[in-house]
Amino acid sequence: MDINKITLFLRQFAAERNWEQFHTPKNLVMALSGEAGELTELFQWLTAGESDAVMNEPASAERVRDEVADILLYCLRLADVLKIDVEAAVWSKLQKNAAKYPVHLARGTAAKYTDLPKE
Amino acid sequence: MDINKITLFLRQFAAERNWEQFHTPKNLVMALSGEAGELTELFQWLTAGESDAVMNEPASAERVRDEVADILLYCLRLADVLKIDVEAAVWSKLQKNAAKYPVHLARGTAAKYTDLPKE
Amino acid sequence: MDINKITLFLRQFAAERNWEQFHTPKNLVMALSGEAGELTELFQWLTAGESDAVMNEPASAERVRDEVADILLYCLRLADVLKIDVEAAVWSKLQKNAAKYPVHLARGTAAKYTDLPKE
Amino acid sequence: MDINKITLFLRQFAAERNWEQFHTPKNLVMALSGEAGELTELFQWLTAGESDAVMNEPASAERVRDEVADILLYCLRLADVLKIDVEAAVWSKLQKNAAKYPVHLARGTAAKYTDLPKE
Repeated sequence: MDINKITLFLRQFAAERNWEQFHTPKNLVMALSGEAGELTELFQWLTAGESDAVMNEPASAERVRDEVADILLYCLRLADVLKIDVEAAVWSKLQKNAAKYPVHLARGTAAKYTDLPKE
Repeated sequence: MDINKITLFLRQFAAERNWEQFHTPKNLVMALSGEAGELTELFQWLTAGESDAVMNEPASAERVRDEVADILLYCLRLADVLKIDVEAAVWSKLQKNAAKYPVHLARGTAAKYTDLPKE
Repeated sequence: MDINKITLFLRQFAAERNWEQFHTPKNLVMALSGEAGELTELFQWLTAGESDAVMNEPASAERVRDEVADILLYCLRLADVLKIDVEAAVWSKLQKNAAKYPVHLARGTAAKYTDLPKE
Repeated sequence: MDINKITLFLRQFAAERNWEQFHTPKNLVMALSGEAGELTELFQWLTAGESDAVMNEPASAERVRDEVADILLYCLRLADVLKIDVEAAVWSKLQKNAAKYPVHLARGTAAKYTDLPKE
């Protein structure tokens, strides 16, 4: 997936509609959070097993795909407005996660790193 | 950015830690939503102008980059677990958005498409 | 519980700290949403059964109580700033819910009212 | 406002519809978070000034009142299911907040207590 192509598409989409005025970082964070809320609503009453099967039904599958896409799109638009290098940010965070959750301490537990046993 | 490489990294990261048991779609949606909440907290008291300048200060810039990365990472992990083709989902949603917000109706307004004037 | 007493406490708490400047409705909505995110994080990796038992462990019980309180507090502060009559709003919404989810149609289903069978 | 009366109403509302099966703490947290997302969507594109005026327009005022009510209702339903004494939880949290944000340190700043100057 060419992230840069999507970022440029979103930038032009906003420009054509004169929407840059609405796309402050604060507003985009709210929009992202609102989309996360919509995704949450799709899963709120499902059991874990039902949530595994959510893509089996075409109508719910499309809703889920659309919400996942919306979140990604607002994430990329926010990153563009904030001039964040998404790829660098992602790999930097992955390295931090690997340091915070070493395999021998984190294996099989969902504990937050602050609650993991110390070495 | 090679989305597939990140997806594979996350898949292995979870497998090595025996975390697949926690990564139900429902749980990942909650994790994504929790990260959106953390991002929101970074911006909640900022004015629009302060939110534009949030990357000027190194410590807050790093926090924002990390949260944006966390959201992207959970999004990609969720998409992997649900077997969503992220690229197809994103372009499909962009086409829908273009149809919902035609330039001549949406220009300069933040109204939801249901509230836009009809043709 | 005397809602009005809490509202007045919060109003004075903000005034003493000169925090009214931060307490715009928009900012308070973000703060509320951020607290909902923190509550979500406490439950994200729990099974349904584990979530039933979350109050059995004193430390997690206190975290849950604090987050539920935070959400209520921001809700009441927001309602105060917006001059919403909370009691009237709550009963009005309960009446709407009763109309949207009649017992004979909604019994035993988590379907949204738009997806309920029609009479 | 008689919190207890609302709690009992919600308990009966769920029982009549055989909805207790859906009202696990985990699911209710998601529902609460989804409602916070809907409230966020009402404010996401508003300036601070526009957010102050959101109750001036009857249609948007009703939407805001309904969302605030929904959040309160899920909060109370969750507290009931978890057997949380809401009043005790609220006053306990207010005392903690007062200790974390002493007037002479917190006055005029939106800094998190961990970032406040130490005595």
